[in-house]
Amino acid sequence: MAVGTRLAFLAAALSVAAALAKGLFDRRQRKDVLGDILARIDVLRSSPDASQDDLDYEFLSLAAYEAGQGVESGEGGPFGAVIVRNGDQGKEIVARAHNMVIATQDPTSHAEIIAIQKACKTLNKIELSDCEIYSSCEPCPMSFAAMFLARLPRLVYGAQAEAAHDLGYDKDHIADAIRGTSKFQKTTCVVKRILHPEVAGVFWKHRNQVQVY
Amino acid sequence: MAVGTRLAFLAAALSVAAALAKGLFDRRQRKDVLGDILARIDVLRSSPDASQDDLDYEFLSLAAYEAGQGVESGEGGPFGAVIVRNGDQGKEIVARAHNMVIATQDPTSHAEIIAIQKACKTLNKIELSDCEIYSSCEPCPMSFAAMFLARLPRLVYGAQAEAAHDLGYDKDHIADAIRGTSKFQKTTCVVKRILHPEVAGVFWKHRNQVQVY
Repeated sequence: MAVGTRLAFLAAALSVAAALAKGLFDRRQRKDVLGDILARIDVLRSSPDASQDDLDYEFLSLAAYEAGQGVESGEGGPFGAVIVRNGDQGKEIVARAHNMVIATQDPTSHAEIIAIQKACKTLNKIELSDCEIYSSCEPCPMSFAAMFLARLPRLVYGAQAEAAHDLGYDKDHIADAIRGTSKFQKTTCVVKRILHPEVAGVFWKHRNQVQVY
Repeated sequence: MAVGTRLAFLAAALSVAAALAKGLFDRRQRKDVLGDILARIDVLRSSPDASQDDLDYEFLSLAAYEAGQGVESGEGGPFGAVIVRNGDQGKEIVARAHNMVIATQDPTSHAEIIAIQKACKTLNKIELSDCEIYSSCEPCPMSFAAMFLARLPRLVYGAQAEAAHDLGYDKDHIADAIRGTSKFQKTTCVVKRILHPEVAGVFWKHRNQVQVY
């Protein structure tokens, strides 16, 4: 092997080793960040002096961690959510999730939606009225309405819609896509109603059979 | 066996046979209904005289059929949705779904959400801007916002929110759960914002890395 080739080979090997080491280091660092947050939550949970504000802050740290994971994994946008239940042992984490829209190619895979689905599955119930949700950013209208459907009684969020809007997300904020009065965007969806006997009939037909939720 | 016992046995057997026959008959009837709707759609698709209103009506018939299936299968409420793509061969059905909230114990399993998820999977893309959605009833705020996220440019619906409301559904209508100005209900969700450096930092940190959707 010529000296130049050897040097090139060595440089390539070194750069691969450096990339591997950086990857391991990054993963280790992320693991540390997660471990630190969970440890702080544990301390607060068992501390009689901890206020609700202290716990809210750390659950939001966890949502922010999830938001970062969403982008770093390439699975979705920088949005994270955590659902916490008010149990006998204090507030316990039931679900955490990040935006997965890119990975699933599903525009409904928002952090809050996935967290609600996970929490319902874990707790085996439709209603999350004994839980609270933490969202790294103001939820979009879909996610906010999903919280309502899941009967979540409390939402804590951090970043304002403007922060997401500045990145190019024009829809991820509490806004009124429905009535067209939102700050950043209007829905352009054309809506038509048809007077159709069967669609009304289906309600009448099943009026004694439905299990309302 | 005493005559009374024999008669009771015979009556029970007859009632089982009748139930089985009715089940088969009902299933057959439903199959016929579905077949009829699909046949009418096929005729309209290949007829040069058919108007968009004619097709809209029949796609809504399909959504109404799905709504019935939702209740009859015990999987969810009487809500159905159909997604149709404007393809080279005219309008083609890409997805149909009914409410599955009871079966999945997931409050986000609305007909429109499932239809959007199915359509994205079938077409292998996030954006459904070449599609239209048909919904048996006015969509709830979550589903309506999901249509916006999926970039669906047109919605056709049948029953008005009032029809669902009369059955006990107090949320399945185009309403403003977000701003608390809706007709039938207000959201009671408590919202708190925290000024948290990490949640804003996550946007800044990943500003060049995100794939916006």
